Amino acid sequence: MRPNRLWDIWAAGRAASNCWLNIPSPYVAELIAHQGWDSITIDLQHGMIGMKDAYAMLTAISTTDCVPLVRVPWNEPASIMQALDAGAYGIIAPMINSREECEAFVGACRYAPDGYRSVGPNRAVLYGGSDYLDKANRTVLTIAMIETVEALAALEEICTTPGLDAVLVGPSDLGLSMGREAKSNQTDPEVVKAIDHILEIAKGAGRKTAIFNSNVDYAKQMAAKGFDLVTVASDTGMIKSGAGLVREMRG
Amino acid sequence: MRPNRLWDIWAAGRAASNCWLNIPSPYVAELIAHQGWDSITIDLQHGMIGMKDAYAMLTAISTTDCVPLVRVPWNEPASIMQALDAGAYGIIAPMINSREECEAFVGACRYAPDGYRSVGPNRAVLYGGSDYLDKANRTVLTIAMIETVEALAALEEICTTPGLDAVLVGPSDLGLSMGREAKSNQTDPEVVKAIDHILEIAKGAGRKTAIFNSNVDYAKQMAAKGFDLVTVASDTGMIKSGAGLVREMRG
Amino acid sequence: MRPNRLWDIWAAGRAASNCWLNIPSPYVAELIAHQGWDSITIDLQHGMIGMKDAYAMLTAISTTDCVPLVRVPWNEPASIMQALDAGAYGIIAPMINSREECEAFVGACRYAPDGYRSVGPNRAVLYGGSDYLDKANRTVLTIAMIETVEALAALEEICTTPGLDAVLVGPSDLGLSMGREAKSNQTDPEVVKAIDHILEIAKGAGRKTAIFNSNVDYAKQMAAKGFDLVTVASDTGMIKSGAGLVREMRG
Amino acid sequence: MRPNRLWDIWAAGRAASNCWLNIPSPYVAELIAHQGWDSITIDLQHGMIGMKDAYAMLTAISTTDCVPLVRVPWNEPASIMQALDAGAYGIIAPMINSREECEAFVGACRYAPDGYRSVGPNRAVLYGGSDYLDKANRTVLTIAMIETVEALAALEEICTTPGLDAVLVGPSDLGLSMGREAKSNQTDPEVVKAIDHILEIAKGAGRKTAIFNSNVDYAKQMAAKGFDLVTVASDTGMIKSGAGLVREMRG
Amino acid sequence: MRPNRLWDIWAAGRAASNCWLNIPSPYVAELIAHQGWDSITIDLQHGMIGMKDAYAMLTAISTTDCVPLVRVPWNEPASIMQALDAGAYGIIAPMINSREECEAFVGACRYAPDGYRSVGPNRAVLYGGSDYLDKANRTVLTIAMIETVEALAALEEICTTPGLDAVLVGPSDLGLSMGREAKSNQTDPEVVKAIDHILEIAKGAGRKTAIFNSNVDYAKQMAAKGFDLVTVASDTGMIKSGAGLVREMRG
Amino acid sequence: MRPNRLWDIWAAGRAASNCWLNIPSPYVAELIAHQGWDSITIDLQHGMIGMKDAYAMLTAISTTDCVPLVRVPWNEPASIMQALDAGAYGIIAPMINSREECEAFVGACRYAPDGYRSVGPNRAVLYGGSDYLDKANRTVLTIAMIETVEALAALEEICTTPGLDAVLVGPSDLGLSMGREAKSNQTDPEVVKAIDHILEIAKGAGRKTAIFNSNVDYAKQMAAKGFDLVTVASDTGMIKSGAGLVREMRG
Repeated sequence: MRPNRLWDIWAAGRAASNCWLNIPSPYVAELIAHQGWDSITIDLQHGMIGMKDAYAMLTAISTTDCVPLVRVPWNEPASIMQALDAGAYGIIAPMINSREECEAFVGACRYAPDGYRSVGPNRAVLYGGSDYLDKANRTVLTIAMIETVEALAALEEICTTPGLDAVLVGPSDLGLSMGREAKSNQTDPEVVKAIDHILEIAKGAGRKTAIFNSNVDYAKQMAAKGFDLVTVASDTGMIKSGAGLVREMRG
Repeated sequence: MRPNRLWDIWAAGRAASNCWLNIPSPYVAELIAHQGWDSITIDLQHGMIGMKDAYAMLTAISTTDCVPLVRVPWNEPASIMQALDAGAYGIIAPMINSREECEAFVGACRYAPDGYRSVGPNRAVLYGGSDYLDKANRTVLTIAMIETVEALAALEEICTTPGLDAVLVGPSDLGLSMGREAKSNQTDPEVVKAIDHILEIAKGAGRKTAIFNSNVDYAKQMAAKGFDLVTVASDTGMIKSGAGLVREMRG
Repeated sequence: MRPNRLWDIWAAGRAASNCWLNIPSPYVAELIAHQGWDSITIDLQHGMIGMKDAYAMLTAISTTDCVPLVRVPWNEPASIMQALDAGAYGIIAPMINSREECEAFVGACRYAPDGYRSVGPNRAVLYGGSDYLDKANRTVLTIAMIETVEALAALEEICTTPGLDAVLVGPSDLGLSMGREAKSNQTDPEVVKAIDHILEIAKGAGRKTAIFNSNVDYAKQMAAKGFDLVTVASDTGMIKSGAGLVREMRG
Repeated sequence: MRPNRLWDIWAAGRAASNCWLNIPSPYVAELIAHQGWDSITIDLQHGMIGMKDAYAMLTAISTTDCVPLVRVPWNEPASIMQALDAGAYGIIAPMINSREECEAFVGACRYAPDGYRSVGPNRAVLYGGSDYLDKANRTVLTIAMIETVEALAALEEICTTPGLDAVLVGPSDLGLSMGREAKSNQTDPEVVKAIDHILEIAKGAGRKTAIFNSNVDYAKQMAAKGFDLVTVASDTGMIKSGAGLVREMRG
Repeated sequence: MRPNRLWDIWAAGRAASNCWLNIPSPYVAELIAHQGWDSITIDLQHGMIGMKDAYAMLTAISTTDCVPLVRVPWNEPASIMQALDAGAYGIIAPMINSREECEAFVGACRYAPDGYRSVGPNRAVLYGGSDYLDKANRTVLTIAMIETVEALAALEEICTTPGLDAVLVGPSDLGLSMGREAKSNQTDPEVVKAIDHILEIAKGAGRKTAIFNSNVDYAKQMAAKGFDLVTVASDTGMIKSGAGLVREMRG
Repeated sequence: MRPNRLWDIWAAGRAASNCWLNIPSPYVAELIAHQGWDSITIDLQHGMIGMKDAYAMLTAISTTDCVPLVRVPWNEPASIMQALDAGAYGIIAPMINSREECEAFVGACRYAPDGYRSVGPNRAVLYGGSDYLDKANRTVLTIAMIETVEALAALEEICTTPGLDAVLVGPSDLGLSMGREAKSNQTDPEVVKAIDHILEIAKGAGRKTAIFNSNVDYAKQMAAKGFDLVTVASDTGMIKSGAGLVREMRG
């Protein structure tokens, strides 16, 4: 089975750089996959992307060796299994707030006896290889989002869920949930303290750690802090850079 | 943030006229949005419309000042949040049968601390404006469908759910659930009595009231009775009018 | 091969009633195909419909015995052959202004030795039957639009083109081309005279005659006048009827 | 209402032959529907098929008298009701592991008072007929998949669920769940024993029985054993036959 | 009819800033339309965009007052008329190399008696208004690309074609055609001389002048030189900026 | 630039095996691309495939090293250039009947000074590499179909067109055009003689030779005869093999 390069990157002690996709376009996905990112996340929750778009985008990403991750719309078995069958090499589940939710999530990603994922890896076999069924449980990443005060309260139990590979900090929702501002690249001391706490507990539980950011400087800081997977940019962020060009023309 | 014109209409003491969309077509949506309806409902439950179609249709409706509402397929956070992120200004949830279900529904529509809606209003910011995050909780309508005997039994608790803006009577399902005929524009005395009861309880709880109808006469009666939002017609209803033309040609 | 019911209708001395489709939606096409029209025209020229939509709409129409016609975007072999391969039972070519253009059009619709249509009736075989190749030349209708002063000047040569089955009057373009108003259901005496002239010459040449109209009354008049195929209504016309409902609600 | 031909086939004492669709293509669906299968299953769980594709494929299948079944992604009311509204004549629900799950499934397929299916059979009326609402509960098949050790343990309770029409054995998941190999056309004695047990209990409860296979020989054996509905082939299986042609050319 | 804001901008003596779209995505189009560009060009020639995408993108742009232009794939009446019917307020035709080609192009954009555009402005009426038919000939821009040595040789005849509104310099093709490098933002003295010549002749003939560029500096120079419409950026250019972020992360 | 593997195969003295695609599905394309074919042809003429589908299918094929060819709908610059910009490594033009037509075809495939292809290889650069513009003229194959008696009469002039790489025999159209049966795998002596003649003249002119077949045996014969590129199978042919399975089940 095609190995998951994120494990190699982490084995080499490097933080992986991730790009986030909100635009439902295989052409955009292919353009960005050729830019050299370690991984790309297709966002089915807040991105304008449906599962059918994700199929096309996963195909486009498969023309490169960039690792494809998918954030599912919610912690539900249907979309988790569909994204995996389509060849996602990691699933990000939003708003995991308890051990029970985390177990349901991880179980949907793993074939028996480790979980209850149903057999039928249609496109995944094309991408991963004919031994997919045997090795998928060890290859595909399970990534739980920590982004609420409920999750902070249950952090230890969540992080020690068997089969969980990583946690991903969602700084906007976390901030809002804590009664602070909803923004990425958090500087609010309370939220930063919470983020540091998540990092510590997750590492202590032997989990990989990830965080959403929206610029290079902050992403570098997070990598320096110990995060294993940092989101640096997004397709919509790149498009939004065009607003500056209009101002330059006018100015 | 762009205001929700339905609140203005209601403040002016007028009942709003709504058109219902079952056809997955942005062109149909744009044609109908130009007809002057106060609001349009994109039906993801019984319409042949998926979330991707809804994105295109919301965009088409955004070329006018018609208020876009979305009925989600079921009371589930994933589709509720996706419709809101895409710019829906109101969510209609089918078959709300208990206070617990209503709280789950309303919570999915509201950012913390009022609910658990996740942050990421991608297209909603384009439609609503850059202050969307601050004002969405007060702008976006939460509309629970009352259409079963279970809901009638829990009516008071449903209507008093904090954060609920309106209830919408579904006369076909309500009729069937009561052991009567499944039809809109109900005339069955038992069902009419139930509808009047919903109207009374909801108004008493300070909620706006809405009802599905399929012709102008019945819609006018419902507005006269006190309903705040009346569905008058649907895209498929307009298309079905073509059957009469065939008969005229033949006759 | 499945016979072309329009020939049967004409053999029975009846004018056929046609509905016009501008909306790219197989659901609308299926709804309208169930209304009992003799034929339906998918408009690839002015409708918002592409060839891929036409494939889906032809499939939808094939759930009934309604005859599917396609107006191609322009008199070009590519789209003519694609529409036929997809199962269209008649092709309407816009703006046929000369004998040469008409011969190019008819040739694209006919297999050798009658024309130069290329072999590959992929979906047409499913719809028409396994003997499609043998009988298509006698089954599929070739319909040339007469809608300019150039066409009026070349009327005789156009109408006598071997292999041409019918002419279709386009009253809007004809009116505009003659320096009069661009409208369907023409009442302008000059344009009416030209329409009558087309009817006479085409009938004299043994061709079937068709005309675009947009209401039942005018369509009945045209049938009474001798037209063999009259367009009575359109999907967008049905949708536009909704504007009246808004006025009724407000009024 | 158009009858469900599977009931007729079973009344005649014949096992029905089913073809499985994984490819999101109405053209493939139409090609296969013309091959003479008794039924076709559109797989929304493991197939690369979304609900919008299913609408187009159901339309394509409706050009023939082949019975359209849909496997939904998961046991959830939203997709069950959407597939039914689109004209599916049977719903296959994956991984039914308890009586409670089976009741939730069956209830989503039946109008009150038999269940809680919501009224709005948009395309289903076109396919089934104008009396759809009255007869759907007796026409549409409810088929629960038995494919885990949990389901084996609850077999009796599942099979006796009121309103359940049939059970479908999923041999790959069943094998894996039992700690054996995940494959169709099972020969593992333990799994075969479990399959026989399911057949016996289901028949004893008066349910129809179905099984997924992937070749003619095994399907014939299963029919001989008493299964009422056997899957014989799939669209992707047909496409995969092409790999042999490459070897032949090279060999 | 909604006026063409480009005429207003030019009347005010300002050069218009244009953004170029290659990505088939209404969401990207809507994001960019909100950035404040004077006009946006949807490129059906080299962009990965088909006519169906263009319909969705024109709708998205219509949520703002940005002027929508379309470059058609080739100088052919079918796509020109479809883009106009869909609401394009200007058509850019590639590789206009002779007076005859330019007349064919302009004629396809104008209703009789000025040209041979066929009547059927389906979506254009929604965007432009109910008097579209009367005013379209004066509102919609005809823009001929000058990008070959053949065009240079016929420059005078092309520029004086009645009904032509503007010429657009394509620097890459022009460079290649002249035996120089194919690039935008030309600095090759021979090509620059040719560009200046085009500017002079076109202005002398009373035509507006446009040029494709790919950065702000060069676009400003071209505006200073007298060009009326300068392309400053493209959606793919914005996306490609992401490659720099990867380098920054790595560096 | 990524080399065109067909040139390598031919340099090694081997005939290339090609598979033909009629189904508009990137999933089918990806499945077949993984089967080991030397090349795959996406058929935009008779296949149910539009340019947008072709983009997705080219992307899917790009996950393997299979060479992607495209048959355009007709000999027209628009679709030829779009297919090349999307990354096709060879263009097949139908019904090339004269030297003039062949020159127009080849010119549309080649950048100046060899032709008039316009610059803008959006996706082609991703697939081919950053030096695409320099090397495309030598890499991309131009393949003219010989399939009419007119083409037979002009064979020498067609085959000697500068820049033409290969000719492709279309046996169905050729047969029909010669007054014989329209079928692949021709055995009609007259048609076989014509095919042999084409092979001889084309080889004499230094062109590669290709032929459409529909089974392994005939394809092997053609390779033995000297054809350089033989079509062995098609996606629809694979699907159609399912009809035999129904017969086996019934038999």
